[in-house]
Amino acid sequence: MNVKKYNGLFFKDGKFSPVRDILSVEIGLSISVNGTPFTVTMQTPGQEKDLVRGLLFSESIYRELDVHPKLEATGINEDGFITAINLVIPEHLILKDFAGTRNVMSASSCGLCGKTSFDDDSQVRIINTETLDPALVGHMFDQVSEKQSSFQQSGGTHAAGAFTMDGTMLSICEDIGRHNAVDKVIGDLIYNSLLHEAKCLTVSGRISFEIVSKAISAGIPYLASVSAPSSLAVDVAEEAGLTLMAFCRNHKLTVYSNTGRVRTTDLAEAMAPANRK
Amino acid sequence: MNVKKYNGLFFKDGKFSPVRDILSVEIGLSISVNGTPFTVTMQTPGQEKDLVRGLLFSESIYRELDVHPKLEATGINEDGFITAINLVIPEHLILKDFAGTRNVMSASSCGLCGKTSFDDDSQVRIINTETLDPALVGHMFDQVSEKQSSFQQSGGTHAAGAFTMDGTMLSICEDIGRHNAVDKVIGDLIYNSLLHEAKCLTVSGRISFEIVSKAISAGIPYLASVSAPSSLAVDVAEEAGLTLMAFCRNHKLTVYSNTGRVRTTDLAEAMAPANRK
Repeated sequence: MNVKKYNGLFFKDGKFSPVRDILSVEIGLSISVNGTPFTVTMQTPGQEKDLVRGLLFSESIYRELDVHPKLEATGINEDGFITAINLVIPEHLILKDFAGTRNVMSASSCGLCGKTSFDDDSQVRIINTETLDPALVGHMFDQVSEKQSSFQQSGGTHAAGAFTMDGTMLSICEDIGRHNAVDKVIGDLIYNSLLHEAKCLTVSGRISFEIVSKAISAGIPYLASVSAPSSLAVDVAEEAGLTLMAFCRNHKLTVYSNTGRVRTTDLAEAMAPANRK
Repeated sequence: MNVKKYNGLFFKDGKFSPVRDILSVEIGLSISVNGTPFTVTMQTPGQEKDLVRGLLFSESIYRELDVHPKLEATGINEDGFITAINLVIPEHLILKDFAGTRNVMSASSCGLCGKTSFDDDSQVRIINTETLDPALVGHMFDQVSEKQSSFQQSGGTHAAGAFTMDGTMLSICEDIGRHNAVDKVIGDLIYNSLLHEAKCLTVSGRISFEIVSKAISAGIPYLASVSAPSSLAVDVAEEAGLTLMAFCRNHKLTVYSNTGRVRTTDLAEAMAPANRK
């Protein structure tokens, strides 16, 4: 199955209630050609055969239509998902040197074997003893909406924002890429010596592993999105001490990890079990 | 400015009318550290300084907060946008070897200098003498919606589909990444010997340079999205012979490139000037 159930706390009209939501599974797939690493892509499990065939065709590495490469699953995780695949292609049919042309993530920063770097104690963990008023999150997105000048004109850009614990906006940046928008916010915070004040990062797009990684790397304890998170995003957030809030729309939201850091009067009774493995 | 005006043909209720829309600018930014290529990212111009500072911090390559690297714009395109940037950082402050850890696109496949590979006559051009009935596009998206099982459950996946000229669905794939969804469709078409039948590729996400490149590489002459295209997507589509349709919602759409390949009775009178440079 390429979806998975997660516990969350749904916030609406000042109250929390436990929910059990279905999220898309995201895992790392390491792709090699004749044993040489080509790339790691974060994907939804299933159709790995189609994915690698299409990717190599799109990138003009292997364009033969009638001769199918031999595929070997060289890694499988505990859930039975393929995490590494090798394509065996006669060398003379490979159209260009692919080594170094794509991102080959280092083993320390991704889910090469379906695990995350945050299993490793040497990695960053966010220490946060504060609790956030969830009612502020809706106001944060209201502030972002007011400032999204590019999006208002083109409908084609993502926005990321950074806020203090009391909901004061420190930075907002827009970019056609959601990763870029987050990087621009972090750079802006660094240049203005505000990184340590930033406690909540808001994003307009889906929350994938990479967005969670950027928030953790920046030491920002809360991450909020208008859209959906992936399974891996929640898993990594839980382990790294990040509080992940998603589907933040119309002053409603769902908290999926480290729920204890969101302030509420009725949290004790509504508390859902954490998404720990 | 990080937005740009484009001519389009807006289709609604069986009729076309010319429109002039504002699209987000997308260009390639080549990033080097001490002269060594690190990555190329497709971005919206502006705040390049923040982008590179944030990216190197997020990726744990340079984490000093108080010592700012020296920045050199090493490439600027004809519109005055920065296309290449070099960061000068004392070697002993660089935390990890970044060479080969990220995608460094080859010069033949990206906008390294703000231009595209499609200026080069040796590159792929789509030859298409057919015309598509625009009314079919809405029905294509209706078919995709019916089949989006992951999205219906999780709200967290993108979908790509491939169709014949008469709107028959050949493939649909879902993935948390929109690029993966397209690659899966292309792989699926190849395995089923259907690539040459595929004439229209539909995507649920924004149309960036990379999505257009995949459609062109697969030789699919029509690309349709429910969302917005970037400036570069339209520029590249126009030059490569791809008909790009965006904002395809509720059986309405806007055609931004190679408009002559969309069938209409009133096209002659409504024809907007092409987006040629």
